[in-house]
Amino acid sequence: MSKKKHVYFFGPNGAEGKTEMKALLGGKGANIAEMTNLGIPVPPGFTITTEACNEYTNGGKRYPDGMWEEVRAALSKVEEVLGEKFGDGDNPLLFSVRSGARASMPGMMDTVLNLGMNDSTIRGLIKKFKSERFVYDSYRRFVMMFGDVVLQIDREIFEKILEAKKEKLGVKLDTELDAEALKELVVEFKKVVKEKKEMNFPDDPMEQLKMSINAVFESWNNQRAITYRRLYGIPGHWGTAVNVQAMVFGNMGDTSGTGVAFTRDPATGEKKFFGEFLMNAQGEDVVAGIRTPEKIEELKNEMPEVYKELVEIYQKLEHHYKDMQDIEFTIQDRKLYMLQTRVGKRTAAAAVRIAVEMVEEGLIDKKTAVLRVDPGQVDHLLHPMIDPKADVRVIAKGLAASPGAAAGEVVFTAEEAERRAAKKEKVILVRLLTSPEDVGGMNAAQGILTATGGMTSHAAVVARGMGKCCVAGCGDIKIDEEKKEFVAGNITVKEGDFITLDGSIGRVILGEVPLIKPEFSGKFGKLMEWADEIRTLKVRTNADTPHDSQVARDFGAEGIGLCRTEHMFFEGDRIDAVREMILSDSVDERKKALEKILPMQKGDFKDIFSVMKGLPVTIRLLDPPLHEFLPHSDKEIKEMAKNMGVSGAKLKEKAMGLKEFNPMLGHRGCRLGITYPEIYEMQTRAIIEAACELTKDGKEVIPEIMIPLVGHINELSYTKERVEKVAGDVMKKMGVEVKYLIGTMIELPRAAITADEIAREAEFFSFGTNDLTQTTFGLSRDDAGSFLPFYTENKVLLEDPFVTIDREGVGELIKIGVEKGRKTKPDLKIGICGEHGGEPNSIEFCHKIGLNYVSCSPYRVPIARLAAAHAVLKEEKKEGYSTA
Amino acid sequence: MSKKKHVYFFGPNGAEGKTEMKALLGGKGANIAEMTNLGIPVPPGFTITTEACNEYTNGGKRYPDGMWEEVRAALSKVEEVLGEKFGDGDNPLLFSVRSGARASMPGMMDTVLNLGMNDSTIRGLIKKFKSERFVYDSYRRFVMMFGDVVLQIDREIFEKILEAKKEKLGVKLDTELDAEALKELVVEFKKVVKEKKEMNFPDDPMEQLKMSINAVFESWNNQRAITYRRLYGIPGHWGTAVNVQAMVFGNMGDTSGTGVAFTRDPATGEKKFFGEFLMNAQGEDVVAGIRTPEKIEELKNEMPEVYKELVEIYQKLEHHYKDMQDIEFTIQDRKLYMLQTRVGKRTAAAAVRIAVEMVEEGLIDKKTAVLRVDPGQVDHLLHPMIDPKADVRVIAKGLAASPGAAAGEVVFTAEEAERRAAKKEKVILVRLLTSPEDVGGMNAAQGILTATGGMTSHAAVVARGMGKCCVAGCGDIKIDEEKKEFVAGNITVKEGDFITLDGSIGRVILGEVPLIKPEFSGKFGKLMEWADEIRTLKVRTNADTPHDSQVARDFGAEGIGLCRTEHMFFEGDRIDAVREMILSDSVDERKKALEKILPMQKGDFKDIFSVMKGLPVTIRLLDPPLHEFLPHSDKEIKEMAKNMGVSGAKLKEKAMGLKEFNPMLGHRGCRLGITYPEIYEMQTRAIIEAACELTKDGKEVIPEIMIPLVGHINELSYTKERVEKVAGDVMKKMGVEVKYLIGTMIELPRAAITADEIAREAEFFSFGTNDLTQTTFGLSRDDAGSFLPFYTENKVLLEDPFVTIDREGVGELIKIGVEKGRKTKPDLKIGICGEHGGEPNSIEFCHKIGLNYVSCSPYRVPIARLAAAHAVLKEEKKEGYSTA
Repeated sequence: MSKKKHVYFFGPNGAEGKTEMKALLGGKGANIAEMTNLGIPVPPGFTITTEACNEYTNGGKRYPDGMWEEVRAALSKVEEVLGEKFGDGDNPLLFSVRSGARASMPGMMDTVLNLGMNDSTIRGLIKKFKSERFVYDSYRRFVMMFGDVVLQIDREIFEKILEAKKEKLGVKLDTELDAEALKELVVEFKKVVKEKKEMNFPDDPMEQLKMSINAVFESWNNQRAITYRRLYGIPGHWGTAVNVQAMVFGNMGDTSGTGVAFTRDPATGEKKFFGEFLMNAQGEDVVAGIRTPEKIEELKNEMPEVYKELVEIYQKLEHHYKDMQDIEFTIQDRKLYMLQTRVGKRTAAAAVRIAVEMVEEGLIDKKTAVLRVDPGQVDHLLHPMIDPKADVRVIAKGLAASPGAAAGEVVFTAEEAERRAAKKEKVILVRLLTSPEDVGGMNAAQGILTATGGMTSHAAVVARGMGKCCVAGCGDIKIDEEKKEFVAGNITVKEGDFITLDGSIGRVILGEVPLIKPEFSGKFGKLMEWADEIRTLKVRTNADTPHDSQVARDFGAEGIGLCRTEHMFFEGDRIDAVREMILSDSVDERKKALEKILPMQKGDFKDIFSVMKGLPVTIRLLDPPLHEFLPHSDKEIKEMAKNMGVSGAKLKEKAMGLKEFNPMLGHRGCRLGITYPEIYEMQTRAIIEAACELTKDGKEVIPEIMIPLVGHINELSYTKERVEKVAGDVMKKMGVEVKYLIGTMIELPRAAITADEIAREAEFFSFGTNDLTQTTFGLSRDDAGSFLPFYTENKVLLEDPFVTIDREGVGELIKIGVEKGRKTKPDLKIGICGEHGGEPNSIEFCHKIGLNYVSCSPYRVPIARLAAAHAVLKEEKKEGYSTA
Repeated sequence: MSKKKHVYFFGPNGAEGKTEMKALLGGKGANIAEMTNLGIPVPPGFTITTEACNEYTNGGKRYPDGMWEEVRAALSKVEEVLGEKFGDGDNPLLFSVRSGARASMPGMMDTVLNLGMNDSTIRGLIKKFKSERFVYDSYRRFVMMFGDVVLQIDREIFEKILEAKKEKLGVKLDTELDAEALKELVVEFKKVVKEKKEMNFPDDPMEQLKMSINAVFESWNNQRAITYRRLYGIPGHWGTAVNVQAMVFGNMGDTSGTGVAFTRDPATGEKKFFGEFLMNAQGEDVVAGIRTPEKIEELKNEMPEVYKELVEIYQKLEHHYKDMQDIEFTIQDRKLYMLQTRVGKRTAAAAVRIAVEMVEEGLIDKKTAVLRVDPGQVDHLLHPMIDPKADVRVIAKGLAASPGAAAGEVVFTAEEAERRAAKKEKVILVRLLTSPEDVGGMNAAQGILTATGGMTSHAAVVARGMGKCCVAGCGDIKIDEEKKEFVAGNITVKEGDFITLDGSIGRVILGEVPLIKPEFSGKFGKLMEWADEIRTLKVRTNADTPHDSQVARDFGAEGIGLCRTEHMFFEGDRIDAVREMILSDSVDERKKALEKILPMQKGDFKDIFSVMKGLPVTIRLLDPPLHEFLPHSDKEIKEMAKNMGVSGAKLKEKAMGLKEFNPMLGHRGCRLGITYPEIYEMQTRAIIEAACELTKDGKEVIPEIMIPLVGHINELSYTKERVEKVAGDVMKKMGVEVKYLIGTMIELPRAAITADEIAREAEFFSFGTNDLTQTTFGLSRDDAGSFLPFYTENKVLLEDPFVTIDREGVGELIKIGVEKGRKTKPDLKIGICGEHGGEPNSIEFCHKIGLNYVSCSPYRVPIARLAAAHAVLKEEKKEGYSTA
């Protein structure tokens, strides 16, 4: 066996490593090697492998045989190419030491800079930098950084000494301390080390190096790192590499400098060099913002050759990596060094533009372009945003429940919202929480703000469905409905005052802030086309109105996956007929009331069918418990009793009788359809009559009737029999044959577990993952606000299961449901219509387990199309799911 | 291949069939054959096999080759042995035709009697019976029965003609019609057949026979039978047999008679011949009760020889079948015929006595004896019953929520119940529904009546736990709490009025009815011992108090499987400290309040540990949401605020803040323990301190700490870490080592699905099947009353899943949980502590899937012990589960 290599050198004549060696050299080490190999100037150094880390860990904290000798050899090579010497009093070489694992991972050891400083080497440094103050400042920083990061002494101890020094000298800023004071600090800091660690501060540079390497190795197994790895499924045997690199200085005078740049505009995606630099400065100075950096173009004037070299380098890097790069550079005495290159972060708009233009430039192929745009980002492209240049006063924060931004006058009731909207006023509806009765007002409002409720509360779900911005569960505000005002901190906002909501990040802003409208450029359309060519998963929409259906169709929806009929029950004065139906004491009375609703529902269906012509429309029969349609407060009950001409007492009794302890688990879904068959019969008649009439007009209609909340096959067969009977009667009477399907929601664990049984009766399945998540976890989304945030903050749960499908639990049940269902009917059409249908990670899961379609709110259709394409491409790459 | 035999003869010289041929001859046919073979006089006849039925069905309604010839041959044989002739005008033979499948099955064809009557044969019959009226009455009955059963003409048509006839003749009773009128009816009935069926009534006896056989065959596939088979999993290929048997008549004069008898007393089990008879009568007359039958002993005087023969026969039958028999006989002109023998139904007390005595007599072995007592029956032995001789006035019916009977004065509040009980008054607590605050009052009451809530409502669960009778969900009563009265129908019951509850069948009875106290005879104890020798499943109890623990231990419990700590929170004035804890605004305040609760909880645990010395005690940490401990009505809130010296507004705000939409899915179980760790810490301290103190006293304590409502492994590890920390601290401080386990409830679908994960942290599992059923079905037990009764009545669900484990859904999840859990830890101890732990069918399931124990309320411990033994015996018999 040949001896194992533990140290990889990189320097002017090339590197021993390369990009593909990420597993061995870590991400940072591999990239530095790659740049070096491209002939790009990088300060020389070496990388100690992840294998060495593992051997160190497993071998009782001893270096693997030969490693230290390799380190010394590589170090000599660096000394050689730079003509400097580590620890030399006259011509000292300094190093930085950084950890670098395969995946970026918080919890690992921070950087140590200026390694190699001691009372002897600073002499040579003072000579080199020509500033005693600068060198002592670096020295005291080094001792502090080493003490903190390597020796793990509480950083605050050093900070306090620094503060005391400033106080004693009567100065305020660190920069006001002179060389003498800094020199004293070095002594005092070293004393801290002596006291805390019972050791002298290591003056020997080789000792400093060894200790730093050990610290990096050991940080791989500190508690934070272990926890992080456990949470994100990163294997412990990956280990971390150590990067030891020669220091370069951008603050050595006016011929030095530092800067950061992007190879294209990260905001717009425009193909132009974009960045800034500062002369005589280090990286921190650019970030700290004390001095204002100059635009990168200015460098052309100041140092034309360096600029030219930089341009050549950035172009080379972008061509090499075939993606927009975020680069860091330092100029040390007119010599350019590249310190870092990595894929640059960008806005959604920029991501789309860059991806499409790179295809046009022949740099990448369409598949790569599609993969370059994060589906989660696309959302921002579809909604108005707050102008990033605007000054905003954030008065409260809540959940980013529905993306986009909106400004308007505050109102506290749905009625007021509708009233003002009718007068063309823009309003923001502010409620403790919303209920189905508020839908009209929500529709009239620009945005919705609620004080309670989570990401899948009524407000959030409906707002997303409407494509309206919503901040939900905003505990920071206290609403006083009687006074018509809310208080946030010490600010009181009254009805009619202006506020602006940012639903993309959950901010409530005082006053009216300028917004930027979304623009769907042709490039976006092109990218979507490419995505459609790739994906195999169909994308449908959840829509209950012709308007939403049209929006979704425009966004590319291939059908309706969930049309909730109950929302139709609230519109206009239908609610009166619905309430009459609920208050009926006999089947006959109930049927009479239902007769009134029939033509309205039929009209709804005709309109939706017309918009969705030629595409399937899945209609869910009535789902919510009846009490949702009754008023709740005594005042409302009184009013309604008066309107309906019934006694208030009777109404109240009925409402009380319908009240439930756990409505989520109560008398709803098919349980209603079974105990009050006339309701589903009326709805079936409305659907089939609508379909027959349109068919007669030559329109293609594809209705799919969906029975909700089925837990047992008998529930489905019981309901199906009656639906088929009515549908048959209607078609016979109208003399038209309409092909329709009868299927069911799978939204209860029992339905998933017995899916083989249920598939005997069902012509399709649609997973209702909202309710399935609630029942599988035993978690009410309306009540989870009191502990779920604590759970995600404290990593009891990594993700909110109402946002991303919980693959191990809910997902496992879905898999069981799919497998069992297809065991009975191999061709069973299966979709998903919960909120997860519009969430990229969940969509990938749906693709993986072989669903036929996802259904999501209209505004998430493009996201779903893109995510579905990603799922295919990731599968092609044989990459598994990764949270990183 | 030898020719298949389709017809099995039975007659004086023995039968071709036997008991073991049940599959081929059906239950009835096989038993008749067996009796014949025993030399017992049975009217001769023959049985057509189930195979013939199947061939008929599959062969397009054609008899199998040779069957009809076999029928004719057997018929001739009957004619021969009786010296009568089928269809003969002078000496006619009549037959009965009955269906007889392998299992008794409703929906199949009824009996046709007197087959062979026509205008010719009645002549001979009149000669034989010497009564024209009697023969015409039989004739018109035959035509009607044949028309109804074989020709499927609506029975009402015949009834109406009969009524018209009586009206015309001005008589009231059928018996007042004379021969002439009956003769006319025969003609009129035949006309109905002609009209409805467009055929003459078949006068040819062979035609009558053929049609009857066909009708039996075809009834196997009528809708009712198919539905029944589908529901109870009876295979369609079983088919039914047809029994054709010569008629005998007990109404041929004073030397004829008929009777029914049991070989032992079915009420007490006493070993004595028990029954009654009527001379000159048919079976219907005994049942109809027009004449009063005589005790069987009287027959000794009237017909000593016949009686002697009967005694010999009954003894032979009991010896042969080795079980108490229910027999039917007819005496035709001094000749005794046995018509039926079957296993006799008996009371629970009789079942126990007969089983034990038969072992003592050497008739059966212990295993058979154990199998002879239905575990479900045992319940009645453990509770008081209403004296069967008492006159009762039932004023309302509800759910039989907790067995036994109780009488007392009606009270409407828990406080009143406690007040009166303190004065030694017996009370019945009547509530809309109960909540944990009512536990004291429930304990003080003799019985509990609630207007709402199901079989697993709070009232039902707690009452069963207390062994107290309870009628729940009694929608028949309307409670007016202010007036302190309830109304049932037109009866108003006021506070202080007496009522009696029968919790075994769900009756509410006006007034005080005498009760019979339970008696646990030595025989019962012996049977239980035998059961214990057989069973492998352990039986624990659900108990929260030393009293309940003692009761359960006396009933044979082998540990506590569920000790709910929250019930302890309500006792005495602890609730004040609990409320103080809930109202705390800071962790410190909360800890201070918890400090007050600590010594009380510790005391509870010490008492329970002492009772259960040497047996394991599983203690569940706090489970219910905190709002359950706060008052609900404004009045109560005001009162409490005053008592606690806090503002009513603050209290109300807190209560409102804790209110949940779906408390079942809310902030409870380990979610509380995670967000308020100090609660579980206090409880852990109380448990471990109690255990340490008793250990110091030399007592053996086996605590098992159970974390409720875990859905994700992280919830368990998060909680477990803290519990272990506190337990370790306590033991260190007290200088004692106590062995304890930490485990979890599996009561959420997600916990079952991810049981392999959870088992990594859990030292035991306990399936909480109440909540698991709620979440798996998405069904709130508190709300299910509005549709679940409809479901079970209409066979949407065959059984209430809160009573019997739903094997396909919930049971499948449990199986997954067991398999996955044991995959991680092969020796994982697994139990069940839901209500199902005391239900025999569910216990069988628990045994089958390999659980270690079931835990049930104290009064169900004997039932569980017996059911667990049954499970083993059934397995030994290699019989699967059968609902029949």
